[in-house]
Amino acid sequence: MANKRILVIGGSAAGPKAASKARRMDEHADITIIQKSADLSMASCGYPYYIGGFFDNRDMLLCSPAGVVRDSNFFLNAKNIKAKVQTEVLSIDRVHKTIHVKDLKTGQEEDLPYDTLILTTGAIPTRPPVEGLDLDGITTLQCIEDADYLRKIRDEKKVTKAVVIGGGLIGIETCEALQLAGIQTSIVEMMPQFLAFLDWEIAKLVENLVRSKGVDVHTENGLAAFMGEGGKLTGIKLKDGSEIPCQLAVLAIGVKPNNKLAKEAGLEIGATGGIAVDHYMQTSDPDIYAAGDCIEIDHLLTGQKVHAPYGDLANLQGRVAGENAVMGNTVTFSGTTQTGICKIFDYAAGTTGLTEKSARKNGFKDIVTVVNASADKPGFMNGKLLVTKLVADRVTGKILGAQCVGPGDVSKQVAIWAMAIMGRLTVTDMVNADLPYAPPFSLALDHSIATAHLMQNKIKGRLKGIDVAELKAKLDSDKPPFLLDVRGEDEFEAMRLGVGELLIPLGALRKRLAEVDQDKEREIVCYCKISLRGYEAALVLEANGWTNVRVLEGGLMAWLYPREK
Amino acid sequence: MANKRILVIGGSAAGPKAASKARRMDEHADITIIQKSADLSMASCGYPYYIGGFFDNRDMLLCSPAGVVRDSNFFLNAKNIKAKVQTEVLSIDRVHKTIHVKDLKTGQEEDLPYDTLILTTGAIPTRPPVEGLDLDGITTLQCIEDADYLRKIRDEKKVTKAVVIGGGLIGIETCEALQLAGIQTSIVEMMPQFLAFLDWEIAKLVENLVRSKGVDVHTENGLAAFMGEGGKLTGIKLKDGSEIPCQLAVLAIGVKPNNKLAKEAGLEIGATGGIAVDHYMQTSDPDIYAAGDCIEIDHLLTGQKVHAPYGDLANLQGRVAGENAVMGNTVTFSGTTQTGICKIFDYAAGTTGLTEKSARKNGFKDIVTVVNASADKPGFMNGKLLVTKLVADRVTGKILGAQCVGPGDVSKQVAIWAMAIMGRLTVTDMVNADLPYAPPFSLALDHSIATAHLMQNKIKGRLKGIDVAELKAKLDSDKPPFLLDVRGEDEFEAMRLGVGELLIPLGALRKRLAEVDQDKEREIVCYCKISLRGYEAALVLEANGWTNVRVLEGGLMAWLYPREK
Repeated sequence: MANKRILVIGGSAAGPKAASKARRMDEHADITIIQKSADLSMASCGYPYYIGGFFDNRDMLLCSPAGVVRDSNFFLNAKNIKAKVQTEVLSIDRVHKTIHVKDLKTGQEEDLPYDTLILTTGAIPTRPPVEGLDLDGITTLQCIEDADYLRKIRDEKKVTKAVVIGGGLIGIETCEALQLAGIQTSIVEMMPQFLAFLDWEIAKLVENLVRSKGVDVHTENGLAAFMGEGGKLTGIKLKDGSEIPCQLAVLAIGVKPNNKLAKEAGLEIGATGGIAVDHYMQTSDPDIYAAGDCIEIDHLLTGQKVHAPYGDLANLQGRVAGENAVMGNTVTFSGTTQTGICKIFDYAAGTTGLTEKSARKNGFKDIVTVVNASADKPGFMNGKLLVTKLVADRVTGKILGAQCVGPGDVSKQVAIWAMAIMGRLTVTDMVNADLPYAPPFSLALDHSIATAHLMQNKIKGRLKGIDVAELKAKLDSDKPPFLLDVRGEDEFEAMRLGVGELLIPLGALRKRLAEVDQDKEREIVCYCKISLRGYEAALVLEANGWTNVRVLEGGLMAWLYPREK
Repeated sequence: MANKRILVIGGSAAGPKAASKARRMDEHADITIIQKSADLSMASCGYPYYIGGFFDNRDMLLCSPAGVVRDSNFFLNAKNIKAKVQTEVLSIDRVHKTIHVKDLKTGQEEDLPYDTLILTTGAIPTRPPVEGLDLDGITTLQCIEDADYLRKIRDEKKVTKAVVIGGGLIGIETCEALQLAGIQTSIVEMMPQFLAFLDWEIAKLVENLVRSKGVDVHTENGLAAFMGEGGKLTGIKLKDGSEIPCQLAVLAIGVKPNNKLAKEAGLEIGATGGIAVDHYMQTSDPDIYAAGDCIEIDHLLTGQKVHAPYGDLANLQGRVAGENAVMGNTVTFSGTTQTGICKIFDYAAGTTGLTEKSARKNGFKDIVTVVNASADKPGFMNGKLLVTKLVADRVTGKILGAQCVGPGDVSKQVAIWAMAIMGRLTVTDMVNADLPYAPPFSLALDHSIATAHLMQNKIKGRLKGIDVAELKAKLDSDKPPFLLDVRGEDEFEAMRLGVGELLIPLGALRKRLAEVDQDKEREIVCYCKISLRGYEAALVLEANGWTNVRVLEGGLMAWLYPREK
């Protein structure tokens, strides 16, 4: 029997993974990767850190764990995989099972036959339909050439002002990189918040941090046009008419699946624009698999198809496609909970499962949310803040999603909740989770467990929470609640809302109940730094006859509006 | 109705937690904590870090998250809980529902009545039956006075040589603290390895690290006697007859449940010595609950009763006992997977579920294990090594346990596997886990997922692993396998076993097959730094007719024996 011919179109993440897995499944297959760009296996998620100067050696973006650059020679020698770089695929002929390619260096074209084809054509950055898009100084951060361009700008130190268009993952990471490079950076987001994978009040905490680092932030304000002189970018105009002068603009308003070849070949394309595949990563043509940013996949909680362009999923899907291309359909990739994380200066922000917003949008009706703020470790081990918003189903108690931000160990928190969702765990399961505890790594009650405790108290009706947005609206209304801060006097001196709240330290509350509004039906909101004491205060008030007591969730650490101090 | 009288015996972790939770459930109950020591709510897991100088303010061990020392006044004012410190409970009268207590300051005795009693009497350090135990200079690290004593020794800088007896969690942490204090420290462990929660070959990696920090390590060697002069410790004698001079010895050979009061009161005591409780934390007397280090609980994987003296579990159990003491039996604590972690210089070592050893001891027969070594993050983000040993059921694929050591982010790895066990997940589930990925936090394929991939390859028979211990035994036998190192030449120059292995870099292997032993039935062991390339090499050999090829699991990073360089 002749050796199986496997062609892989795309050489970034999913493609090389699929090719390598196919090789491990079949030493004798003919495996070829076709890559339009000159480089292969680029660690594209690392671009912002290269630009930001976290490391200087560009080769590190292209290296195997052993430090060898993964070029065509590497693939040929270590894996016996041919990699044709700087080669563009022009079309797929499904009837004759060939692809038509063009060598971009020589201009020569040829047909390559396949038994099985794997499409890993990735995604392409969305470009807004505005004037001036071709001015010099406008880029995306999609390919390694973009990273080279931005790194050069960093090293040359000529650009002084930059604008990042889009406050998603890539936008935020690029914004940090440019600001760290000493470039005064503005960031423009059309929606009311950054990072759509967070709920508004959590995203605002990130926005506040970004502002505090000197970044000029514009939300609810879209790009109207690029402005230039002599072919060079000089600034941007926003939808509200204002202008921001700049010599550099980075477009990061999202990506869409690169489905061109697949579409032209008549493969089924999903509603998201992603190539339709089953759990085997097989397209509507049984001889063609697809993986990575060019496909759409199942959301494991909603059952909806989603486009989830994440590097980790691309690798997992590539592995499945590579094995099935050789072995027939034996392994599956079932879908995503859209788990993600990004670094933002000294914060991280992560998410898994559904936000409150996305849960409601997807028809989950009886959901309950809670916000918890606490340190990740004890104070004596330099614990750092974490703020988590947890979303659960009120009836079943099932965990639907969690978002976490802060300078603390966000990565572990998000991993814990991602695993909880994967195991279909409930709040009741999580309240007694057996997690690794020692002071260098966590509190005795890990932040995730404490969050589950709050959620349990909320579901049982013991904790009547109010979120910062609702409280702010009430404070701005003509019927503001009675605000009770129960921290210590020194804490109050150092930091406070200053909106007319009363301070009664928790330790004095039982003796000073007379100072609280004696209208037992008046709405009272208790809080402290993180609302642990606030919760205890609320229970004291309720036991003494107050009937409308609520606790500010996350306390002052979740307060995203200006404070008196 | 009169207010419910709740007495809590013990004021360290579970006790204050139970009392506080009871207060939150019932503002009007009479709640009293009886504590023998002068301090309350001590963060006892923090003692080693106080001794080691990670922080200097002793109050931080006793503070609430808001920085208030949790003394009797704090409990009275903030929680309306009476805390009688320096008060010893002499007996429990279950018929009259009273306890007999003695004020250790005044000598006065009295009876205190209860409606519900909560026992949180903790554990007591095991003391070996050897000579010289009362010499000056011998201590345990159980109570805060022990921590004070050791911290004073650190600050006075008079002690130059110390011995830690016992290589468990506390022993290892204390050893680090003393060594960091500039004291030449020896550690003595009777068993062949440190940290019984790890399998031998993983524990040896920790032992190698401890040695590399200048600690004098003795395993398989017990304490025979303490030696002294003028009432002062001068050294210890070991079972093999050797002696170690020292001015300080710390006993850390384990703890046993402090069940004295319970036993004398006729409560049921389990086989482990722990007070028997059900999932409500209720003892054999329905009016008495118990929680923390004095009880035994279910192991969730084996169904066996275990004594699991961990601070996090004590808090969880205390919370359950406190709620049930007020509300009747409404909430449960179901058991433990014995998840644990400790810091060891720049390493961490953690575990969850069963080791290979404990799985076999508990009757699991068809288990499969794999060792994986990789970085926690990309090289360009300064990734650090993790070594994980995963244990699974071969038939169901269910995850039974994981151990992880290294300078990398062990805490997240152990949390992930703890959650996997809690969700009863299988290897097949884990190979496509959707975990948070960005280069500052993980590899595109997180170490846990890569470990699951290896396990899947092993279960499917594709990866035929050999662990370092088996390989070493074979190398020392008269029929050593043919050893093939497939790293680069520069890597080989920098580090190698030097036991007669052949170097053929993976990239050259297909062309240099003639150099491999041509006896196709000869056992060949392939490896690289972490055995990713080793695995690919094995597949190449198998595809070319070799029939007995194995891969060194974890590669050189798991090699715990001396190397040529």
